[in-house]
Amino acid sequence: MTDTAHRVVLAARPEGRATTDHLRHESFDLPEPGPGEVLLRTIWLSLDPYMRGRMSDAKSYATPVAIDETMTGQTVGEVIASNHDGFAPGDIATGMTGWTDRAVMKGDELRKLDPTRAPLQTALGILGMPGMTAWTGLTRILEAKKGQTIVISAATGAVGSVAGQLAHARGLRVVGVAGGPEKCAHATGNLGYDTCIDHHAHADGEAMARAIGEAAPNGVDLYFENVGGKTLAGVVPNMNDHGRIAICGMVAWYAGENLEDAISGPTIWRNLLTRKLRAEGFIIFDHWDRFPTFLDEVAPMVADGTITYRESVTDGLENAPKAFVGMLAGDNFGKTLVRVGPDP
Amino acid sequence: MTDTAHRVVLAARPEGRATTDHLRHESFDLPEPGPGEVLLRTIWLSLDPYMRGRMSDAKSYATPVAIDETMTGQTVGEVIASNHDGFAPGDIATGMTGWTDRAVMKGDELRKLDPTRAPLQTALGILGMPGMTAWTGLTRILEAKKGQTIVISAATGAVGSVAGQLAHARGLRVVGVAGGPEKCAHATGNLGYDTCIDHHAHADGEAMARAIGEAAPNGVDLYFENVGGKTLAGVVPNMNDHGRIAICGMVAWYAGENLEDAISGPTIWRNLLTRKLRAEGFIIFDHWDRFPTFLDEVAPMVADGTITYRESVTDGLENAPKAFVGMLAGDNFGKTLVRVGPDP
Repeated sequence: MTDTAHRVVLAARPEGRATTDHLRHESFDLPEPGPGEVLLRTIWLSLDPYMRGRMSDAKSYATPVAIDETMTGQTVGEVIASNHDGFAPGDIATGMTGWTDRAVMKGDELRKLDPTRAPLQTALGILGMPGMTAWTGLTRILEAKKGQTIVISAATGAVGSVAGQLAHARGLRVVGVAGGPEKCAHATGNLGYDTCIDHHAHADGEAMARAIGEAAPNGVDLYFENVGGKTLAGVVPNMNDHGRIAICGMVAWYAGENLEDAISGPTIWRNLLTRKLRAEGFIIFDHWDRFPTFLDEVAPMVADGTITYRESVTDGLENAPKAFVGMLAGDNFGKTLVRVGPDP
Repeated sequence: MTDTAHRVVLAARPEGRATTDHLRHESFDLPEPGPGEVLLRTIWLSLDPYMRGRMSDAKSYATPVAIDETMTGQTVGEVIASNHDGFAPGDIATGMTGWTDRAVMKGDELRKLDPTRAPLQTALGILGMPGMTAWTGLTRILEAKKGQTIVISAATGAVGSVAGQLAHARGLRVVGVAGGPEKCAHATGNLGYDTCIDHHAHADGEAMARAIGEAAPNGVDLYFENVGGKTLAGVVPNMNDHGRIAICGMVAWYAGENLEDAISGPTIWRNLLTRKLRAEGFIIFDHWDRFPTFLDEVAPMVADGTITYRESVTDGLENAPKAFVGMLAGDNFGKTLVRVGPDP
């Protein structure tokens, strides 16, 4: 017996900015779970900037999504049926099921969650990939130390909001860059940022450089890079000798926009050389062995309220494309989630 | 009593390419050495690409040379008179006396040489700053390991020629990039390079990328960067995941040339991110504490012939400007030296 489920597939590859036309919500026949497999119904779908990269077929660290293939994505769901010893109906699990309301997965590719530890959707945000990304960038790539000044772009995003709070807890001076006064007020009011620069108020890299210079009077030791664009152009001239840059994302450039007045290659190179900077790209999947260490450190900080989080929730899988496009444009506020089905 | 000596001063700041008109050979009144000071006569003057940076007043890691000030430079000389306990007439010493045929220096700023260990001028090359730079880049910044593939630009230059031989001795696959068939033949024939790419034969970054791809069929793990320009554009697309780039120089860009078709900032950034690369600038002065370790390792390799060196020698301080301009254009072959006075 087959059953009808729903999914969102890649309809066309975007040239430039992704729109809802590049995605398609459709029904499909759900297979029965085979040996070792589990049937899940989706409760939460995570939307993340990296998904924009998977829509393109340019060389990247991961295989692109094929046309008509289900969009990649992590979800939290409830086990409906299981042919795997590790899972029973009613269990809660997370895995890369993609943008779908039901999925058949190998049990070995799922991670069971303790639903009493924290709200289920935190496994997609602060206690999941974005939180782990923030922690890894701060501790392993930047090796952040008390007393240093750090700039964090996309300061209130899923990654930045955790990075800012962790940096604050470690005793750094934390400068955020975010889009709009509301996000900046959230950054300084709730996320531990010492100050926040609204990039909408600064037209180009030179203006950003002045603003960052004022926000970081002793210079910038560390930069947690999520955006590229004019923010990068503004940070680089403020970097202190031996500073470090962790390159986690470059959302301003994903769609091939904002390239005309981008910082030039020779300018980046000259600054790396003369200021003796280290710039390093990282991908969280390379650091997954440390996930338990991350959870041990950060889960208690979430439980006791040291670290807070904020969510942008959209209801219904059919609305995921619109939420995704909005997130890429900066409309989200905190972790972007789609509520695909009710809590158990 | 004062005495007349000679020096080369900065006559004007170059906009773009440096020419001999930007430098001036002149006489000056040599002061008597005061307490703790030493009078030296210069035997060897080292010419190095970093000096081009000191001619500009753009922000860099070092103070620029002032107009009418003696050009910065390291020399080897003989002590003529000494008011310092550590030096006696006839001693051989090295220090930053600048481009001059005699100099009064604080004894504490000089390092005494053992003239029996190796030819005096090696203190300016293979057993001095360039050799130490090569060793530091390879061991501390790139952490080169046996079996890796490394690309070294300016492969036969003062730094590259040592980096290539050290990398070969450590069991890496060593790919050189140099200007012209004669330099490439020297690289593969004498310096341990497995292969060498003549960048004169490749018009742009795309052509360089194809050549490097052929020379490094398993990809590039490490890049010892001395030039920037089309070589960098050619290396980046060939970098393996988790590769490292040590940025030691960017001679193609010092004069503000070759910028039109340079690799763009977003392209560098995207590659650092998606390939998880680390790019790090370094300056040898930050690593000087390890100089004894370097000497202990490399001096015996020079003595037993494991590492060889080649010199481009120009006679006469008055000819130093021409030799310097030629070196920046790639006319030199190996370590560029000026013989200012006879050996003792």
